[in-house]
Amino acid sequence: MKKKATFFHAGCPVCVTAEQQFVDGLDVARFDVERVHLGEDGKRLGEAEAAGVQSVPAVVIDGQPFHINFGAALADLKK
Amino acid sequence: MKKKATFFHAGCPVCVTAEQQFVDGLDVARFDVERVHLGEDGKRLGEAEAAGVQSVPAVVIDGQPFHINFGAALADLKK
Repeated sequence: MKKKATFFHAGCPVCVTAEQQFVDGLDVARFDVERVHLGEDGKRLGEAEAAGVQSVPAVVIDGQPFHINFGAALADLKK
Repeated sequence: MKKKATFFHAGCPVCVTAEQQFVDGLDVARFDVERVHLGEDGKRLGEAEAAGVQSVPAVVIDGQPFHINFGAALADLKK
């Protein structure tokens, strides 16, 4: 069964680089990758927060958050 | 041509989780993944630093550093 990987971002330059260079490199045979733009899809903020995401870009794999560098704090996306 | 991905770690729990859940997910058809334990292989510290790595775990892809969560500062591995 494929693992679920959810990439949370905000369209920031750090986010775009992390997506293109790193997250896009995940093996699609093993991962179902979903991309969520929290700036445009604010109703997913709670889901990111519940998974432990504190900043974007971050990817949640099997419920575990992995923050990749630092683009923006989740708190700032709520404003 | 495969991209080079170098995973720098220090054997810490955060490092192990990042490796097993995330870095191991990179598509080996597209990436040559090398794993470097900076605690055991201190002579690679300069290489990590030159690539902009400030903490581990981190993966350097095509010369760009991606820090994954936070395990230990590079400065603390030099002591």
